[in-house]
Amino acid sequence: MFEAKIDANILKGCIESITAIVDEGKLRIAEDGLKLRAVDPANVAMVSFELQSDAFDDFRFVPKGAEPEAVPEGEPTTESQVTGATEIGIDFRKLLDILGIGGREEVELELDEHAQKLFTRMGSLAYTISLLDPSSLRKEPKVPELEFPAQVIIETEEFRRTIRAAEKIGDHIALGIDGEVFYMEAEGEMDKLRLGLRKEQLIHLTPGTLHSLYSLDYITAMSKGMAHAENITLNLGKDYPLQMEFEVAEGKGKVTYLLAPRIESE
Amino acid sequence: MFEAKIDANILKGCIESITAIVDEGKLRIAEDGLKLRAVDPANVAMVSFELQSDAFDDFRFVPKGAEPEAVPEGEPTTESQVTGATEIGIDFRKLLDILGIGGREEVELELDEHAQKLFTRMGSLAYTISLLDPSSLRKEPKVPELEFPAQVIIETEEFRRTIRAAEKIGDHIALGIDGEVFYMEAEGEMDKLRLGLRKEQLIHLTPGTLHSLYSLDYITAMSKGMAHAENITLNLGKDYPLQMEFEVAEGKGKVTYLLAPRIESE
Amino acid sequence: MFEAKIDANILKGCIESITAIVDEGKLRIAEDGLKLRAVDPANVAMVSFELQSDAFDDFRFVPKGAEPEAVPEGEPTTESQVTGATEIGIDFRKLLDILGIGGREEVELELDEHAQKLFTRMGSLAYTISLLDPSSLRKEPKVPELEFPAQVIIETEEFRRTIRAAEKIGDHIALGIDGEVFYMEAEGEMDKLRLGLRKEQLIHLTPGTLHSLYSLDYITAMSKGMAHAENITLNLGKDYPLQMEFEVAEGKGKVTYLLAPRIESE
Repeated sequence: MFEAKIDANILKGCIESITAIVDEGKLRIAEDGLKLRAVDPANVAMVSFELQSDAFDDFRFVPKGAEPEAVPEGEPTTESQVTGATEIGIDFRKLLDILGIGGREEVELELDEHAQKLFTRMGSLAYTISLLDPSSLRKEPKVPELEFPAQVIIETEEFRRTIRAAEKIGDHIALGIDGEVFYMEAEGEMDKLRLGLRKEQLIHLTPGTLHSLYSLDYITAMSKGMAHAENITLNLGKDYPLQMEFEVAEGKGKVTYLLAPRIESE
Repeated sequence: MFEAKIDANILKGCIESITAIVDEGKLRIAEDGLKLRAVDPANVAMVSFELQSDAFDDFRFVPKGAEPEAVPEGEPTTESQVTGATEIGIDFRKLLDILGIGGREEVELELDEHAQKLFTRMGSLAYTISLLDPSSLRKEPKVPELEFPAQVIIETEEFRRTIRAAEKIGDHIALGIDGEVFYMEAEGEMDKLRLGLRKEQLIHLTPGTLHSLYSLDYITAMSKGMAHAENITLNLGKDYPLQMEFEVAEGKGKVTYLLAPRIESE
Repeated sequence: MFEAKIDANILKGCIESITAIVDEGKLRIAEDGLKLRAVDPANVAMVSFELQSDAFDDFRFVPKGAEPEAVPEGEPTTESQVTGATEIGIDFRKLLDILGIGGREEVELELDEHAQKLFTRMGSLAYTISLLDPSSLRKEPKVPELEFPAQVIIETEEFRRTIRAAEKIGDHIALGIDGEVFYMEAEGEMDKLRLGLRKEQLIHLTPGTLHSLYSLDYITAMSKGMAHAENITLNLGKDYPLQMEFEVAEGKGKVTYLLAPRIESE
């Protein structure tokens, strides 16, 4: 049993952070909130999403096994029952489409696990979406073990503005640290763009010397997913994946993107 | 002789209510105002439009027969002379294009029946449009005799918002009444949208049990035509045409849309 | 040596007045400011652009010959050295793209003539654009000797609004004077648009009787280039080129467009 209420705009921001990477995915519902981990079809980008139950105005979840009705005999005990979580497959893009219409109201969510449907209610408008069969969806990826030698915390708007400018230059962008300066660099045939921010212009910087190259398509998508966050934390390495973390739902949710580097042609 | 002045925005709203259904049509000008009735090329939707002469800041019309100059001998007396009305063919979409440029000024209209032109003046900008030969236009449709068992009056914005949401779901929308609830329902392959409004959430409702299915393309176009009206009146039946009525020109004009139902495949 | 600082929006407005006609061109930098003269690829429209050095918050230019380092022996003395000017080839559209991102900040410009690059800095964002080889660009056109019998000064917004309306009518527009009235006229198959302004509705008018026809495509582009100017001066003749002049950079720059007439088919 899952029933919850949440501000429509907060939910919209959360789902936008997911659709930046995947259109559909497996959402795990548990007593402490919602979780999702998914990779994009090309296996280049990963999103980890967590939304605490207290981000909701109302949040009630009772795991299947704990409900009064007994588990039918012979039904195998699945992992999700053991952990007290329910996993549902959602077409996030469809859900987002409808949330965009609803305005600033509160959204009520209600899961009908038996019928495999999610009910969404915004004022007088009820929207029912069929759940996707979780077994038809890509497996939840394992988070690779990574150690990032450097971290930068930057205002999201500065980051996003640079990405928008870089899109006009080329297909790739380098993120790096040079001493006490964090930089982002894009190069075209004719021109070159560079954002350079000294330690004191950033919220945080680990000094060092490193840089990696990433596909702009992915970073552009990600930068849209983080539009509502004030700051983002970048975890960086040398020719290494990029990890970007930011808060959603006024600090009651967290999103982490992981992006594989492009190997520079020499 | 026809000369009139009207607020450009009011005229624009009126013409938008017409172009929601047809691009061109026959406008009847008489002493008491303007009238039009037209069906869309597929014969699925009809618009009836009336604008009272007092919606204009200035309105002067003298029917052809009543003008000082004598009717040339041998010219047959047409119906429009008898009724004291003049019928002109207008490309409304062209007129709308130009009104959009003019801004919030007053528009002066002047008909040159001899040259078959309509002069439009907005400030220093004069726009002359050649009239269409009324005989080249589709005949004015007869309004079918209909009796609607139920009526709903609803805020236009609530109606339009639901239509916008339904467009994301499917191609059709059902409008119906179930007891004391008015509902609009759209169904896609994966999802379903339903607006349900109880009698007390509406301005008016005839309780009952009925519903009909309509093409969303048409209702979407119509919902754009009614953008400036506060409320709309829906006249409904069971597998029956939908009649939508609303005011334009601050109550000094009235628009009625009629839409044929889709027969549901069983 | 060239280094300068200028308000990003002022520079953007200047470059938009150039890109209305050409995407790339030769910019002459001298002690008194910047100059450009270029024709569009079809040889129909010309732009002359001047920006005084005092439009900049900071402007430093030392011509090549005047710099401390001696001219290498054997290097021929070019005209630009003699006149104390430097000529650089710029892809204005690329530059404009990036200025659009920068916001309302100040832009710093710095020329590296040796590397043939222009550095642009907006806050922490540095943008480097490779210069185009001036010899690969079209030669600077000669300004034809023209005598305009009439002049009209008109509010830019009135002019631009009429151009926007005319685009909906046809491909050409006539500009003319009839007695003490300035008019702009566009004719379509079905309709006709005319702006008529009497002397007292204009800032200036030379009475007369003349008109010329121009391609709307060009005038539309030009009308975008003049968006920030309050008034424009039109110099007119009978079947004669159109000259349009307006100020940029708060009066510290001047743009002149010249447009060849269309010969009317009789």
